[in-house]
Amino acid sequence: MEVPMQQINEKLIEKPISSERIYEGAIVNIRRDTVTLPNGKSATREVVEHPGAVAVVPVTDDGKVILVRQFRHPIGQLLLEIPAGKLDKGEHPDDCARRELEEETGFVASQLRRIASIFTTPGFTNEIIHIYLATGLTATAQHPDEDEFLAVEYYDRDQIKELLAAGELQDSKTALGLLLTESLR
Amino acid sequence: MEVPMQQINEKLIEKPISSERIYEGAIVNIRRDTVTLPNGKSATREVVEHPGAVAVVPVTDDGKVILVRQFRHPIGQLLLEIPAGKLDKGEHPDDCARRELEEETGFVASQLRRIASIFTTPGFTNEIIHIYLATGLTATAQHPDEDEFLAVEYYDRDQIKELLAAGELQDSKTALGLLLTESLR
Repeated sequence: MEVPMQQINEKLIEKPISSERIYEGAIVNIRRDTVTLPNGKSATREVVEHPGAVAVVPVTDDGKVILVRQFRHPIGQLLLEIPAGKLDKGEHPDDCARRELEEETGFVASQLRRIASIFTTPGFTNEIIHIYLATGLTATAQHPDEDEFLAVEYYDRDQIKELLAAGELQDSKTALGLLLTESLR
Repeated sequence: MEVPMQQINEKLIEKPISSERIYEGAIVNIRRDTVTLPNGKSATREVVEHPGAVAVVPVTDDGKVILVRQFRHPIGQLLLEIPAGKLDKGEHPDDCARRELEEETGFVASQLRRIASIFTTPGFTNEIIHIYLATGLTATAQHPDEDEFLAVEYYDRDQIKELLAAGELQDSKTALGLLLTESLR
């Protein structure tokens, strides 16, 4: 598994030359960069800048997982997902996880543990999602963002396994978070 | 697990009102849509349009997984990933999986099985990745795209488990594809 770093660098690394701002949006910004390839030629790379996000697998004391069903405009359909949300500016991922869990599901967790940090699609965006396992849950009140509409649903362990096996959990962070949680049980 | 569809629709679905083209790129396009929310108010949704992609978990006859290490400009670092690539226009995902596997690793597979189709980050893009398990591998020749530089590496089952447990597989499709493959063994 050991490969000399210097050798990898020379063979694989791209070096930035210039950058053009394309779009400054509410959630994402777009830029178009020019890079030098390892062979000395240049290439264009489109980059979607994202602030980063958290996602939380909330498991109740009786072993149920809390999921949220929500409409995703980019794909034009409802998706069943683990609660998640973008990092506010300067916000620590742990704080964001607590906040999003309570906003979207109405639960607070006495234990919160980061189980992974993953790049959603590193070919075109820097988005990273920190995935947490939340346990020791206590019900408070759901209070989603003004433009956010969610249905909170509960699934036991067998139902989660069925949904995964049937390919019905099509959201990447959700399938990954639930498989990681299952591997920890 | 049953919820009446009509009730879900009224409570959760957003309806498109208008759409503005922001950027037409080489890999992604950007548009800014206005939608009507379930409460009747309107909101803006930024959408990154992506052609879709495939990813392949190649497992050799002696149980090793073939991964590719490549530089990802958006995150400015090298990532260890399963072979993957975008769908060409009109290309069937099965054909794309065969093509990308051979281009990136130099192997052809006698068995190719789709094990999942996942949305990478449905909050802002329609990108879907079809994940395949490839077995019955025969070596031919690696021939990556002109602007693609990859190191091909081999990992046995225990090494994959170690990498997953250590959080060293940070690419979402890769972690998910390998966990799904492990759950099928």
